[in-house]
Amino acid sequence: MKILNYKLILPAAAFLAGSALTGCKPGQGGANTDADAAKKVYVAPGKYDEVYTFMSGGFSGQVAAYGIPSGRLLKVIPVFSQNPENGWGYSEETKPMLNTSHGFVAWDDSHHPELSKTNGEDDGRWLFINGNNTPRIARINLSTFKTDEILELPNIGGNHASPFCTENTEYVVGNTRFSEPLDNAAGDVPIDSYKKNFKGAVSFVKVDKESGAMKLAFQLIVPPFNYDLAHAGKGPSHDWMFFTCYNTEQAHTLLEVNASQRDKDFVMAINWKKAEELIAQGKGTKTPAKYAHNVYNEKTHSATSVMENETQTLDVTKFPGLVYYMPCPKSPHGVDVSPDGESIVASGKLAAVIPVFSYKKMLDAIDKKQYDGTIDGALPVLKYEAVLRGEVKKPGLGPLHTEFDDKGFAYTTMFVSSEVVKWKVDNLEIIDRSPAFYSPGHLSIPGGDSKKPYGKYVIVMDKITKDRYLPTGPELCQAAQLFDISGNKMKLLLDFPTIGEPHYAQSIPAEKIVKNQVKFFKLAENTNPYAVKSEKETKVVRNGKRVDVYMTAMRSHLAPDNIEGIKVGDEVYIHVTNLEQDWDVPHGFAIKGANNAELLIMPGETTTLKWNPYQQGIVPFYCTDFCSALHQEMQGYFRVSPAGSNVPIKFSIGVNPVTQ
Amino acid sequence: MKILNYKLILPAAAFLAGSALTGCKPGQGGANTDADAAKKVYVAPGKYDEVYTFMSGGFSGQVAAYGIPSGRLLKVIPVFSQNPENGWGYSEETKPMLNTSHGFVAWDDSHHPELSKTNGEDDGRWLFINGNNTPRIARINLSTFKTDEILELPNIGGNHASPFCTENTEYVVGNTRFSEPLDNAAGDVPIDSYKKNFKGAVSFVKVDKESGAMKLAFQLIVPPFNYDLAHAGKGPSHDWMFFTCYNTEQAHTLLEVNASQRDKDFVMAINWKKAEELIAQGKGTKTPAKYAHNVYNEKTHSATSVMENETQTLDVTKFPGLVYYMPCPKSPHGVDVSPDGESIVASGKLAAVIPVFSYKKMLDAIDKKQYDGTIDGALPVLKYEAVLRGEVKKPGLGPLHTEFDDKGFAYTTMFVSSEVVKWKVDNLEIIDRSPAFYSPGHLSIPGGDSKKPYGKYVIVMDKITKDRYLPTGPELCQAAQLFDISGNKMKLLLDFPTIGEPHYAQSIPAEKIVKNQVKFFKLAENTNPYAVKSEKETKVVRNGKRVDVYMTAMRSHLAPDNIEGIKVGDEVYIHVTNLEQDWDVPHGFAIKGANNAELLIMPGETTTLKWNPYQQGIVPFYCTDFCSALHQEMQGYFRVSPAGSNVPIKFSIGVNPVTQ
Repeated sequence: MKILNYKLILPAAAFLAGSALTGCKPGQGGANTDADAAKKVYVAPGKYDEVYTFMSGGFSGQVAAYGIPSGRLLKVIPVFSQNPENGWGYSEETKPMLNTSHGFVAWDDSHHPELSKTNGEDDGRWLFINGNNTPRIARINLSTFKTDEILELPNIGGNHASPFCTENTEYVVGNTRFSEPLDNAAGDVPIDSYKKNFKGAVSFVKVDKESGAMKLAFQLIVPPFNYDLAHAGKGPSHDWMFFTCYNTEQAHTLLEVNASQRDKDFVMAINWKKAEELIAQGKGTKTPAKYAHNVYNEKTHSATSVMENETQTLDVTKFPGLVYYMPCPKSPHGVDVSPDGESIVASGKLAAVIPVFSYKKMLDAIDKKQYDGTIDGALPVLKYEAVLRGEVKKPGLGPLHTEFDDKGFAYTTMFVSSEVVKWKVDNLEIIDRSPAFYSPGHLSIPGGDSKKPYGKYVIVMDKITKDRYLPTGPELCQAAQLFDISGNKMKLLLDFPTIGEPHYAQSIPAEKIVKNQVKFFKLAENTNPYAVKSEKETKVVRNGKRVDVYMTAMRSHLAPDNIEGIKVGDEVYIHVTNLEQDWDVPHGFAIKGANNAELLIMPGETTTLKWNPYQQGIVPFYCTDFCSALHQEMQGYFRVSPAGSNVPIKFSIGVNPVTQ
Repeated sequence: MKILNYKLILPAAAFLAGSALTGCKPGQGGANTDADAAKKVYVAPGKYDEVYTFMSGGFSGQVAAYGIPSGRLLKVIPVFSQNPENGWGYSEETKPMLNTSHGFVAWDDSHHPELSKTNGEDDGRWLFINGNNTPRIARINLSTFKTDEILELPNIGGNHASPFCTENTEYVVGNTRFSEPLDNAAGDVPIDSYKKNFKGAVSFVKVDKESGAMKLAFQLIVPPFNYDLAHAGKGPSHDWMFFTCYNTEQAHTLLEVNASQRDKDFVMAINWKKAEELIAQGKGTKTPAKYAHNVYNEKTHSATSVMENETQTLDVTKFPGLVYYMPCPKSPHGVDVSPDGESIVASGKLAAVIPVFSYKKMLDAIDKKQYDGTIDGALPVLKYEAVLRGEVKKPGLGPLHTEFDDKGFAYTTMFVSSEVVKWKVDNLEIIDRSPAFYSPGHLSIPGGDSKKPYGKYVIVMDKITKDRYLPTGPELCQAAQLFDISGNKMKLLLDFPTIGEPHYAQSIPAEKIVKNQVKFFKLAENTNPYAVKSEKETKVVRNGKRVDVYMTAMRSHLAPDNIEGIKVGDEVYIHVTNLEQDWDVPHGFAIKGANNAELLIMPGETTTLKWNPYQQGIVPFYCTDFCSALHQEMQGYFRVSPAGSNVPIKFSIGVNPVTQ
């Protein structure tokens, strides 16, 4: 039943485009051997990249920060998935970050990084990212590159159209890809009651202007389509948020066929300002809902997870003027708004054109009630011709996603014909096209979805890489390609592999991030209840079966480093405070045979490993991060005595053991 | 108690060396802006790198494959740590790989990748890597880039001097960094009984010539020093294995001070051929020992874990001629054997010279009994002057590790003075030095520890990177630096960040790996008991509370995609077979709210996710790897009914449900 198989279509664009680049066989290389490209991507030792690109990890669940133009992976930021490397999701302080209404969830699928915006421009403060599988939105603090907050979203399945933010980061949104019965609503219903019992829900999450703290403000109950991507309006269209919908057929099986029936699906336009007003007027319905809200505190260096129990909904069919649908050819993926806020570009992956809608015409069509029927008898479908600014003709096959540069051009990825197409926003004329290797999904231009694009580069994320890199068995990397877009013609500069599957990236000039960097945590401000500020304060305390070890790490010893009196069956919490107060001096901590991971402790931080000693013996522990010439010597021993023994708690470093 | 703090010492070598390179401040860049360097590291889109470098992830627990000269990260190979990205350690098939005698261990600290060797040359078949924390050795299959086997090592703590292999991969070894009482031996003893009760143990693991299968052959019980690194002899010294030892003071607390007392520690030389003979003669003592042996089967695509219960030991004090000690200044780290097998280079991290021992002189000293006393009254310490070929004078501060090129030169990292030193193996004269940024640990030259170095590049792994890259908060990347060593002077070409902390790397010309690549698994050869070979065979089977879902994945649907009759409290095993038979067409699989990770299923493979539905409702599942233009449509639903309900098992795709 191999119905539609696009994955292996070769880059037809290479032949269409007349570009110097052609598909290439292993070992033969591409035609692009330009020394100029080498120079453009080379960042000499000791020099810095110009741009940060934040890529989602897709099925890795994390976010990765790359330097551009070098394509170097600077850091993997743990978000939704356990990260044994630094103990994320294993240490006691971070476990609550992965709590959900379904219990501890070790993994998610992160898709769309979104930089916080002020006046429609990237402000470099936070990066939001969606968890698609178990619906959540995370907020990463870009001064520490740590995930500070994760908010679960009730009532939805597949949080894919997320977390796009409004012009001043008033809200970030989450919308359902897999419509399902609202939580607590339907009872035990069959799947084929889809049209009756399944719903979509658009979550508007309020973001605090100062702290970035998120709060689920309200949810709009919408028809059970698959909502794919979104973008907020800006400037004149500030009050609106646009979403693509596919499966407007409302199929629940074999969507490959059944959700590809209609020639047009929709762009859903939501007047979020109006929704906000309705909520302020008390028009929302409060309904029970269970969702976790996890917050990391930078002073205690610890997370808490609180289970929320209520959401507020608006049934959009009951509030005219809230939601309109614009017909859009066919199975649209990206919806992208031009820097001036006037053009709304939707990319139908099975469409032969790229429709560009006009915000002005949309308002006009609403005003004039230029409808083409309604959905659910209440939600107006605007006439295609009435809202259309125009179509980009013959763009290629499988348009997916569009961003904008600083010179009035748009760039769209063509998944099926494997190319990037450059077109002029004002007249919709195609200016240039270049093959991409292979099957590009999204692309990213620094500031490319903001009011003020920086331009210069486009980073194209490819789904297929076979024959592009040295092989690595059946499981290959996914990858990005960097194009220079400073000139009239796009120029492919570099292929670089990526971590996980980058569904989308946001890119920002480095200076907006560098200036805010925290280099280490101040020990004096550490309020973790188990922190100790000097070696003198280190201790080991037993309370019944619970033993708390207050330990310090400092080049090049862990204190205490000889600990006795631990017994089989104890629950031991080792709280390690890194006493260093300088940049780039982490310490690690690991125990032989422990059933979790290690700790990686930044200067000034306290982190806790829980350990259940299960057998008698001597158990070594050590620092796992090569911290000095005497790092190898940074080790110690636990003595674990039998359960019934009377060996007292004893701890020491050097020669004089302290007995509790 | 900040006693020895080397980490922040600036690269003094920059001033000593008269190099064009100097330490540079953020934003200013280094002096090396040579366009020639750019050209040398640039691999144009579509072209391939020349060399694979396999780096340990250190505290990430994994191995990363990089392309050289570009420095691009090709793949992270999961080994000892859970990897949510592809379900390693989460799927039913791979969980056994992380089993140990301590139960399931989610993490380890991987240090030293070791390529298998034939006649002393890298043969490109397997890569071995040690788990340092919970002592283990893993074997990665370089035709699939998958971990095929993990063998735990009993009786040791901190498997650091590991897994170095003999000239024909007869054995790989593991030696203890943290001596401890042998398993089952000492009872509940205090830590300060170290000298009496603690022991070292050197594990010799036999490697099957054809399959690579590992088996713990024997263990040598040695004095309780800290064994740091090792290398096998080659050519004339084929029969010997050399290990560095520090903490020959046998301290158990504050090693930073107490293990730095003696001016000389040791290189321990073991005649492994003799040990093998003794074992063959039945001289070994069989003792109980519990250690896991985990094997991944490429046909069932599943791992098994077997708990072994016995080891065979030799107490080296009882067998003269087995072990000798060569005095070595001070706290030695690397011990490296020249391509001709004659020179044994030991790097004392607190030493001011690099001693180069002569294999011939060692044999001669043994022959003439040129001893400087014994250890434990039985193990001869050879006279320093008798075994010394010579010393490399004034190499810098903190020599750590040495490799060799194809032209008779050796390269040694200097951790404290942050530089790489090139010297001539025959006359021990220093030829060149270059700063490294900062604090280099190990280095890697393609074939650099083999009989036939390829040379051309040296990759230096740095422990400190502050101010070398765009900042990423308090937690920074670790990194490598690529030098061109084809000329007389070393030339720094490129800085590139790394995953985790690369303690060591092994590098090999790409052609040795590329030719063996498996591109996909043959479906016809898949013998996983839950595999289905076509959609017709898909089914859902209930047995009591256990439900097995036999599912297939194929662009662009999962079959079945509507599944009913699952009940709260069931134990559901979803076995997904990827029916594709082409390169680079993985499918993913995830369930909303599941408490483990996703599956990433390669073509022809079957992988299983265990799911415990805990509440009534409709639960979406989907493909997590963007596999085609209709990937977004590749989804389905479970219906979970209440525990007591009588909804029958029902599954379908398209329209006709099948009832069990």
